[in-house]
Amino acid sequence: MSSPLRILMTPQAAAQTASGLPTALGERAHVLVNLGDDADVAFVSRDVTGLSTKHEVLPHTQAFHDAMRHAPSLRWVHAHSAGADRPVYGELRARGVEVTTSSGANAGVVVQTALAGVLMLARQFPQLLAAQHARTWSPLMGSGLPRDLAGQTAVVVGWGPIGQGLGALLAALGLRVVSVRGSEAPAAVPAHESVSYEQLHTVLPKADWLLLACPLSDRTRGLIDSAALAHMPAGARLVNVSRGEVIDEPALIDALRSGALAGAYLDVFAHEPLPADSPLWSLPNVIVTPHSAGHSDGNEARVAAIFLDNLRRWVRNQPLVNRVA
Amino acid sequence: MSSPLRILMTPQAAAQTASGLPTALGERAHVLVNLGDDADVAFVSRDVTGLSTKHEVLPHTQAFHDAMRHAPSLRWVHAHSAGADRPVYGELRARGVEVTTSSGANAGVVVQTALAGVLMLARQFPQLLAAQHARTWSPLMGSGLPRDLAGQTAVVVGWGPIGQGLGALLAALGLRVVSVRGSEAPAAVPAHESVSYEQLHTVLPKADWLLLACPLSDRTRGLIDSAALAHMPAGARLVNVSRGEVIDEPALIDALRSGALAGAYLDVFAHEPLPADSPLWSLPNVIVTPHSAGHSDGNEARVAAIFLDNLRRWVRNQPLVNRVA
Repeated sequence: MSSPLRILMTPQAAAQTASGLPTALGERAHVLVNLGDDADVAFVSRDVTGLSTKHEVLPHTQAFHDAMRHAPSLRWVHAHSAGADRPVYGELRARGVEVTTSSGANAGVVVQTALAGVLMLARQFPQLLAAQHARTWSPLMGSGLPRDLAGQTAVVVGWGPIGQGLGALLAALGLRVVSVRGSEAPAAVPAHESVSYEQLHTVLPKADWLLLACPLSDRTRGLIDSAALAHMPAGARLVNVSRGEVIDEPALIDALRSGALAGAYLDVFAHEPLPADSPLWSLPNVIVTPHSAGHSDGNEARVAAIFLDNLRRWVRNQPLVNRVA
Repeated sequence: MSSPLRILMTPQAAAQTASGLPTALGERAHVLVNLGDDADVAFVSRDVTGLSTKHEVLPHTQAFHDAMRHAPSLRWVHAHSAGADRPVYGELRARGVEVTTSSGANAGVVVQTALAGVLMLARQFPQLLAAQHARTWSPLMGSGLPRDLAGQTAVVVGWGPIGQGLGALLAALGLRVVSVRGSEAPAAVPAHESVSYEQLHTVLPKADWLLLACPLSDRTRGLIDSAALAHMPAGARLVNVSRGEVIDEPALIDALRSGALAGAYLDVFAHEPLPADSPLWSLPNVIVTPHSAGHSDGNEARVAAIFLDNLRRWVRNQPLVNRVA
């Protein structure tokens, strides 16, 4: 008879998963343990993160991270997020702890937000909203006429659930979609053309839109640097719903200031919260949101379902989904 | 041998159609006539309208309209717009002149703009942009968490090229789409449920979104009045890319002020330009644009193609497309 599985999670997470735990665990007994106790498994739910960012960790988040660091028996951690690029996950993996993510749980939501950014820029909403604020009726005419979005080319970096979902919708809107991928595994959504991260520069000259939806890794950190930006056509636009570190932010600011880039929608930044003195807050045609592209009221249930599915696999010694390799 | 067809159009329109005219006309000779001359056919291109609205007609637009009014031989007018609700078209039709529109030419563009409005409201961009303006990092959390858009219900009034295009994309985003139609003719895009304009009230109670994409007619004028708005669930949102007169604007303002409606994207108004003292400019969660949802650089060529196709039909005595019945 195996000993009870010791699961570290917050009271909120325990409430979210209570109804599904017995089915997931089957015959295996379990106990929920508190911060400071040893644990076999941990579930990092959304409330653990709260308002903490990767760069500014609040005490309640720090306490949970420390509890994982100090649980000698910990073998597996499941994260609510799509990525596992916070430092604690790297530390845990270095000592052999399995880390899984909730990649896919909020993908549909992030796709919608990224598409909002594309359409707002394509349809000149920054300018239209400024006119609204001034109570000025200024129809889009003459040199202010937007370009047809249909027929333009979008380069989508990262072809996971978010990249593929966004690519499918952009194709439905008549864009030509080029995928820039981290692997050559078959994908559910086809692209007009597909290259690897390392071949990004070959497709940038035709990128009316550069849309970042990749995980942060050694291959993607700083991928969009001044050389990459210089390869893009004049007047191109950029959307980032991946991680701020994928972009060389000072180079991006230069490109936006010079007009080489005509606009951007940014949900993620090199440092979060974005410092109050960042020029990004007020550059023309730049839309800034506070790393909220994936926030939605249905995420909690989707994340809990992925954790419970993995818990079922864990107690049966089956391969976990969304493993961080 | 028939006499030359006398075509009234602006120099810009003549330039846009020059390469296609010979093919469209076949054997038939033609002459382009000036304002003040009699004409058989007129093409009202985008530049005829310019910055004129239905309610405020500038002198150059007035001069073209008057030329049509005073051309005794005029038998057919083709309009660049999707609708033909400006008074001049009613006057011409009353004396037996055929009127055709360019319905469909900018439909894809209007669909994109309407979708931008839906996504901006769903993802709380009015609030996010206000925070950006204040350089404040305020993630969407707790009571500010947006609702999942997937699973919500959109009621789309008008099931022409715009309504169907919008409906197809909303279905791809996971919404349940109810079409409210002016006819029972088969449609290319299916809806989950379909009712007539006169049955609108039966579907409003489930409308998380009310999206107006219908032509203005006796059946749609004032369709969205206080009674209709009262049938909608609390917190519903509205998008209007059809015509301002479809809505009882004071009733809409009341519903937005009371919070019965949680937000709106409005491109069209009871009077255009929207008067500077209209409360719509500054109500929270209301996005106002200056009747520009369909403006795009590819429209001119698409409108010219529809006119030339109809011209080909006209000289061959074939039925015209986009006839105003």
